[in-house]
Amino acid sequence: MMNVAVLGYGTVGSGVVEVIERNNEQVSSKAGDEMHVKYILDLRDFPGDPYESLVVHDFNVILEDPDVKIVCEVMGGVGAAYQFTRKCLEAGKSVCTSNKELVAKHGAELLALARENNCSYLFEASVGGGIPIIRPINKALTAEKLEMISAILNGTTNYILTRMEREGVGYEETLKQAQELGYAERNPEADVEGYDACRKIAILSSLMVGKNVDSEKIYTEGITKITPADFAFAKAAGRTIKLLANASADDQDRVQAYVAPALVPLEHPLAMVNDVFNGVFVTGNMVGDVMFYGRGAGKLPTASAVVSDVVDCARHVGRTSIVCLWEPVEAKLLSIDTCCKAFFLRCSAEAKAQLTEVFPGGTFLSAEGVDEIGYITPVMEEQEFAKKSAALGDALHNRIRLA
Amino acid sequence: MMNVAVLGYGTVGSGVVEVIERNNEQVSSKAGDEMHVKYILDLRDFPGDPYESLVVHDFNVILEDPDVKIVCEVMGGVGAAYQFTRKCLEAGKSVCTSNKELVAKHGAELLALARENNCSYLFEASVGGGIPIIRPINKALTAEKLEMISAILNGTTNYILTRMEREGVGYEETLKQAQELGYAERNPEADVEGYDACRKIAILSSLMVGKNVDSEKIYTEGITKITPADFAFAKAAGRTIKLLANASADDQDRVQAYVAPALVPLEHPLAMVNDVFNGVFVTGNMVGDVMFYGRGAGKLPTASAVVSDVVDCARHVGRTSIVCLWEPVEAKLLSIDTCCKAFFLRCSAEAKAQLTEVFPGGTFLSAEGVDEIGYITPVMEEQEFAKKSAALGDALHNRIRLA
Repeated sequence: MMNVAVLGYGTVGSGVVEVIERNNEQVSSKAGDEMHVKYILDLRDFPGDPYESLVVHDFNVILEDPDVKIVCEVMGGVGAAYQFTRKCLEAGKSVCTSNKELVAKHGAELLALARENNCSYLFEASVGGGIPIIRPINKALTAEKLEMISAILNGTTNYILTRMEREGVGYEETLKQAQELGYAERNPEADVEGYDACRKIAILSSLMVGKNVDSEKIYTEGITKITPADFAFAKAAGRTIKLLANASADDQDRVQAYVAPALVPLEHPLAMVNDVFNGVFVTGNMVGDVMFYGRGAGKLPTASAVVSDVVDCARHVGRTSIVCLWEPVEAKLLSIDTCCKAFFLRCSAEAKAQLTEVFPGGTFLSAEGVDEIGYITPVMEEQEFAKKSAALGDALHNRIRLA
Repeated sequence: MMNVAVLGYGTVGSGVVEVIERNNEQVSSKAGDEMHVKYILDLRDFPGDPYESLVVHDFNVILEDPDVKIVCEVMGGVGAAYQFTRKCLEAGKSVCTSNKELVAKHGAELLALARENNCSYLFEASVGGGIPIIRPINKALTAEKLEMISAILNGTTNYILTRMEREGVGYEETLKQAQELGYAERNPEADVEGYDACRKIAILSSLMVGKNVDSEKIYTEGITKITPADFAFAKAAGRTIKLLANASADDQDRVQAYVAPALVPLEHPLAMVNDVFNGVFVTGNMVGDVMFYGRGAGKLPTASAVVSDVVDCARHVGRTSIVCLWEPVEAKLLSIDTCCKAFFLRCSAEAKAQLTEVFPGGTFLSAEGVDEIGYITPVMEEQEFAKKSAALGDALHNRIRLA
């Protein structure tokens, strides 16, 4: 019998209990031992809940029970979650988490703590929900030097962009629909401003180079300025618009990372990642391009990823299960200033002559029913673009990078 | 120092040596020990080759060297490859392979032999080339009951179908082009008749249920009868044509598996898997749909997958690294007769009235420049379709299942 404790009985927490119970045969057989949820930690009571009797309010009950070898931290936040995780690992209990904020902030430190105490800190669910992506990077693509990751990591924004493209409706109205359907939070800032995707690409890029990439230093731009006119021009260019989280590493393991909307060619595999789905496109120096696709959020997919970590811990009680090279030293993060891209510009029609003057060698786009003009610049450095585009002043209504 | 021997210095074998040498820093760091190729077994000599001095002709040199803990079997075939693999495992040497034929035929037996001898038999490269798929099924989707796999597993046929669709050219001419470009073998039977995809889906479906699915009992149909007219009708139906390898498992772990061309909706993720790429679409009861995409063949992608297995073995010397539930007992394979599908029919124009008589409730398709007619039947069992369609006689020119 392998006893598990679940910290936090919210959406993901109740999903973890459900996956372990409903798929108990599969989970126990893969784990090599019968899996059992012994405690659920929550401040609330859950009268009438089938697992009511497992609920405890005192974390120390779990910490001090030597029968509990594996703890699922699905509370979120970097306060109590951080303290509880440290205490569990120090006590030799493995921790499996979906808490991307905590992993992005303290991942390297908690991994080191797990190693010192012969247990594991696993976080498959922190990026890409149910999509296996952390494990493939750590365990499968091990013969590779990973050169680039380009990913759709936030389901809320991808849902909004997909609806805007298909229905030609504006951002605000689509956001409202998404909120009504439960795909967006009432305070949607973390999603729509790109902060959620930023934390996830910080985790992936840290794994790429084995060093800490500080999410707060990653250039991040959200989707709030995207309009139906942008989609019309994108279509005219054979492209769609996605919120991409990108990271690349050079020969010296210096990282270039940013989160921003991008015009993606329709024939690119990421262009078909629609609605709440996520996609992670990885380029290795031997394998070339690989993509992982699936549900990036949601109760059961996220819980499934947490439980896959639980299975791994169960098979490795008393030792660290996955070799995760992520040292608590800071990675060198390159500024976006020297990043090279072509840019799509949406401008007032009067700016036509000025556009070819400021950005010679570009291509004009026109879109039916749109009285503005579209223009795609040649590839240039971000800093050059920023400097030159200032000359356009108010005539420049929006600019989006090309993927 | 971790010494590796490579059996067979062909395309994949030379790729394995190249990956270990070029990515030695990454590979050694992930393996936790310096990786080194000590022997290359081949009947031929390779004068002038940079690794000429490593070539041996006698397998016993490798078998009897206690320094060699890991062997890559990349010879192919089920003769010498089978004997050598058994001997290595019996001697406690782990074996990593790309040999799908051998895995499909003797996988369960060789896994059991590896377990008995505290070593590993790993075969990530046997399905999907460089795409991590075996490891995600065994190690990542462990909280799932896998319900269905639908996959494009053969790069040659996918390349041919992609060209036929884009260029409107016939099968024979496209095959010839593919042969000239090295994407198809001079004797293309194993690819174009679906046998290669069949072996791979046998491996995946065996892993789904943990029992042996006999590839020779899987219904298999190739792409040789597909014409440009079929693509024209598919387009009219908002679909494309892909060679799909499908497997599903019911509550009692009974398997339904087959390989056949199918009309895939353009919005399905598998529809964008083009050229030599492969895609494996997996449905689990908790995670929902997940897809893995990448290069299904080629020297370096395949070698990268072999080397990822080598890294795993290096980290687990003296024990079995991956828990792979695949017992040497036969899985119950359901006949395709009771499988339910809608069918696309391409018929001579005179058959119009007869079609609605034989298959009432279907939909006609027309395609520009094609003087035949297209028809999509309602969903029905294979056996019902076979019986009824016989009435159409010579008027029926082709029939393809809908995905």
